[in-house]
Amino acid sequence: MNQKPRIIRLGLAQPDVIVGDFAGNYNKLLRVLDDARRQKVDLTVFPELVICGYPPEDLLLKPQFIERNVQYLNKLVQASVGLDVIAGFVESDTYLYNAAAVIHDGKLIATSRKIFLPNYGVFDEERYFKPGADCSVYVIGGVKVGLSICEDIWHSNNPVASLAKAGAEVIVNISASPYHYGKTKERVALLTSQARQNSVIMVYNNMVGGQDELVFDGHSLVLDAQGEILARGKQFEEDFVVVDVDLDTVANRPFQEKENLSQGLTQRSWTVGLTKVSEAFSESEKPSLALRVNEEYSPDGEIYNALVLGTRDYIVKNAFRKVVLGLSGGVDSSLVATIAVDALGKDSVIGVSMPSRFSSPGSQTDAILLAQNLGIKFFSLPIDDTFQSYLDNMAGIFDGSETDTTEENLQARIRGNLVMALSNKFGWMALPTGNKSEMATGYATLYGDMAGGFAILKDVPKTLVYKLVAYRNLLAGYDIIPQSVIIKPPSAELRYNQLDTDSLPPYEVLDLILKAYVEDDETVEEMVALGMDEEVVRMVVRLVDGSEYKRRQAPPGIKITTRAFGRDRRLPITNKFHGNF
Amino acid sequence: MNQKPRIIRLGLAQPDVIVGDFAGNYNKLLRVLDDARRQKVDLTVFPELVICGYPPEDLLLKPQFIERNVQYLNKLVQASVGLDVIAGFVESDTYLYNAAAVIHDGKLIATSRKIFLPNYGVFDEERYFKPGADCSVYVIGGVKVGLSICEDIWHSNNPVASLAKAGAEVIVNISASPYHYGKTKERVALLTSQARQNSVIMVYNNMVGGQDELVFDGHSLVLDAQGEILARGKQFEEDFVVVDVDLDTVANRPFQEKENLSQGLTQRSWTVGLTKVSEAFSESEKPSLALRVNEEYSPDGEIYNALVLGTRDYIVKNAFRKVVLGLSGGVDSSLVATIAVDALGKDSVIGVSMPSRFSSPGSQTDAILLAQNLGIKFFSLPIDDTFQSYLDNMAGIFDGSETDTTEENLQARIRGNLVMALSNKFGWMALPTGNKSEMATGYATLYGDMAGGFAILKDVPKTLVYKLVAYRNLLAGYDIIPQSVIIKPPSAELRYNQLDTDSLPPYEVLDLILKAYVEDDETVEEMVALGMDEEVVRMVVRLVDGSEYKRRQAPPGIKITTRAFGRDRRLPITNKFHGNF
Repeated sequence: MNQKPRIIRLGLAQPDVIVGDFAGNYNKLLRVLDDARRQKVDLTVFPELVICGYPPEDLLLKPQFIERNVQYLNKLVQASVGLDVIAGFVESDTYLYNAAAVIHDGKLIATSRKIFLPNYGVFDEERYFKPGADCSVYVIGGVKVGLSICEDIWHSNNPVASLAKAGAEVIVNISASPYHYGKTKERVALLTSQARQNSVIMVYNNMVGGQDELVFDGHSLVLDAQGEILARGKQFEEDFVVVDVDLDTVANRPFQEKENLSQGLTQRSWTVGLTKVSEAFSESEKPSLALRVNEEYSPDGEIYNALVLGTRDYIVKNAFRKVVLGLSGGVDSSLVATIAVDALGKDSVIGVSMPSRFSSPGSQTDAILLAQNLGIKFFSLPIDDTFQSYLDNMAGIFDGSETDTTEENLQARIRGNLVMALSNKFGWMALPTGNKSEMATGYATLYGDMAGGFAILKDVPKTLVYKLVAYRNLLAGYDIIPQSVIIKPPSAELRYNQLDTDSLPPYEVLDLILKAYVEDDETVEEMVALGMDEEVVRMVVRLVDGSEYKRRQAPPGIKITTRAFGRDRRLPITNKFHGNF
Repeated sequence: MNQKPRIIRLGLAQPDVIVGDFAGNYNKLLRVLDDARRQKVDLTVFPELVICGYPPEDLLLKPQFIERNVQYLNKLVQASVGLDVIAGFVESDTYLYNAAAVIHDGKLIATSRKIFLPNYGVFDEERYFKPGADCSVYVIGGVKVGLSICEDIWHSNNPVASLAKAGAEVIVNISASPYHYGKTKERVALLTSQARQNSVIMVYNNMVGGQDELVFDGHSLVLDAQGEILARGKQFEEDFVVVDVDLDTVANRPFQEKENLSQGLTQRSWTVGLTKVSEAFSESEKPSLALRVNEEYSPDGEIYNALVLGTRDYIVKNAFRKVVLGLSGGVDSSLVATIAVDALGKDSVIGVSMPSRFSSPGSQTDAILLAQNLGIKFFSLPIDDTFQSYLDNMAGIFDGSETDTTEENLQARIRGNLVMALSNKFGWMALPTGNKSEMATGYATLYGDMAGGFAILKDVPKTLVYKLVAYRNLLAGYDIIPQSVIIKPPSAELRYNQLDTDSLPPYEVLDLILKAYVEDDETVEEMVALGMDEEVVRMVVRLVDGSEYKRRQAPPGIKITTRAFGRDRRLPITNKFHGNF
């Protein structure tokens, strides 16, 4: 007997929500629900903790924050008439749980709790939540859907196989997964193997947007039981991915009630409303996803766009309209200005040159040329008179002492003061321009070039800065960041003929050591065994360990590597242990 | 038949160790072992993680840090010939455990693992450690000793009753318990009730010393089965408390092998070496503890001494010899200077006055008088010429705009630059002088008065500043901090006739609101219900929420309240949720 194909139309929403903005977030979700109705979506999926935003951190300790989150979940439930919806929220029941609500036709049918709580890297979930005891398979519109939350599918004891064994045809994972380079590949690899090994359709729904130091990249995915990607959400953009999935591609499993799953997980089943398997749709109605499936950024393009989104969201979500930064004519400030323009538009970026007696003429002309290429407002504030007034003031006290980094730091701090004065006077957020190689080695001045609200390149090594500049110039089709900026040897220009290489190894060498030491916790022996020069390695390790106090006072920045400075790497300042043995 | 009394001589060591200083810490422990031999101590107890220092934070992720810790535990074991010793270390066995080593006569007999891992407040132990499964009773020198680690006795499911039921006569708890005001009373109350309820001798051994933002206050305690304090370690000082405990005061319990304890704890017993119960000692040999038992600080004295120890250890452990700070003639900088002198000595403190056109003559004479009272080096660096040079430089850009906080912040930042220049030139650590009321409301200038290495008053509300000044003057027997400093109305002196009350409620009002909102997470409704003015409460809440970005770049300071800013209170900067509804 000839049957209609069993097809479920999935809608994966990846809204850019704001932590604590319950009303604003809710309105975004409402617009998605309208869209879902219009497109006849069978199951609409929202990300982890979409109601309150992620990560709420210690706001979770405030009872009224939890209440507010429950109020808005209930509003979402009431607004879901005629729809099936899965959405992340904070469940409160003696303890707090990172949970998913299963909603059918205006009713909260069930909640499912996150089992594996990440408490490493940037995550502190065990500080707030208790783990869920089990995961479940829900019959939604006649389709057996296994539900999991973020870490649940990443953990070595992940319940994917158990859910499949329990009869799940589709496994939904709602996530708020912070971006770092290479993670996209990791995700696809994991989901592909899980889909294939368990012959299930994997539905990965991820949040999008910047939240302080984290960027959530969206890039939601739907894979068929063969591990082929059926649909892909936009990366670094809000999106609502609608895709029809043919369930006949999944071996139709016997539904095993109350089967006892491995890893102490028990399995329940819920019949959510009536069976309402979609009709097959006419071509015209069918959403075309072919293009999306092929859309992918180059590695450098991916990082660049992460920085743009992280910058835009930090500035805008904190209610700033414009930014100001010092343009030295160097490659770091040139890249920061370019990212800022891509994030906010040229009318929102102000560049200021602050030359001293040590500034090369080339640096100033390069800064002007960049400002012209970007079409941003630009002016110049020379610092020499102010510098001299400090020196005169301290002449008596400094009498007889050598000129040293004190005078260099002073120039950087005068520039910091000028940029902050512009920030205070006009309400522009100041953007420091330092990169990760400088943050790591302390080759930066506290309260000087480190001063500002948001350090876009804080987690970007110098060698990557050059790659991102090349990417952006290629995209522009011309040297929007001038070649003269790129080819000049890096210099802080705080004394005559100064070069970064006077104090640091060449960046190609330095960044390799920093990756090994900071990101991979390699010992000096291990790094030397990798062929790195022992003396250089020891020097770099000393610099990194000795700069912890500086980093502790650095502004927030955007995490793009596997280990950023900040809460991703929590080291004591007072510390006599050094990696150098 | 007439028996000798059963007496055990306990030695509680509270050394001031440094995180990662394995060799230095080990040498301190060796000196304690010699002392223990000399005093014929039966059981010597060291604090939690004494081998590596506490908290090691992400150093625990470095394999060589763990190896080094095991190497030094083994050295301690070998050095313990003829002694019974308990000491905290990191046990590595697939996972990491916060463990206690039980050592007898140069041999490692057993290890006991911490069961309850704190992962709240300043603690991140679940980031590193797995919990232990059980706790044990060890027969040490014929005495049944139950072992626990820090949080184990604080948790609601604490194993104290189980250990007593299992036959423990003495329950030892090794701790690294950070100080906050009032905690001493909490500890004594807990230990007293546990000793009485279970009729056991409670031995509480706590670390001493400052480690970044935390101060461990020592104050180890031995309580008899009636809950009476038999001995007390010095608070805020290294100490080795030796005390004889008469075991006949404890109901001699039947020793129940393999009894199954509550809360899933199983009980093992170990016979550690030979029974070697001490002889009763002659009066001359008996250590006198009478004085110590009665030694206690006043509440303000306790806080003051916590600040002195935290300051000394941060400066010294980070290899600084001298500190420099701006003396405004105000009460905050006067207190910071006084604490610094008490911590480091007068020859290690340099005060600098940085007057502007807005400084009152009284402020400068007060600063000079304080410097004279403290006997510290003092000089003056007027800031007006430099201030003017900035204004001239920006005159064009600022043309047509009103004078506002920009010009005030600029003065504060010039002072910050001068203090940092002195720090850079002479290697003195700069001490900012802001208090918690300012940190909370953002009534401070980033890179200005917030600039420096260690913010001693960061967690000290303004009203407490006055109490600490009164305490210190009382101790001095005269107004070492001049009355004129205390009675003048608080002012930043950044414009003519400026008063803090122009921008903030009176500190008596402000600090009550801050305690309720920051320390106790009270809502606006709750605070209003407590009788606080709603408009004022809303204003303060707005100020606190809006200043998170400033606090994120603040230097570390000393935690003395139940919730300090920093890792004790982890809030997003990007946050649309405010306590004001």
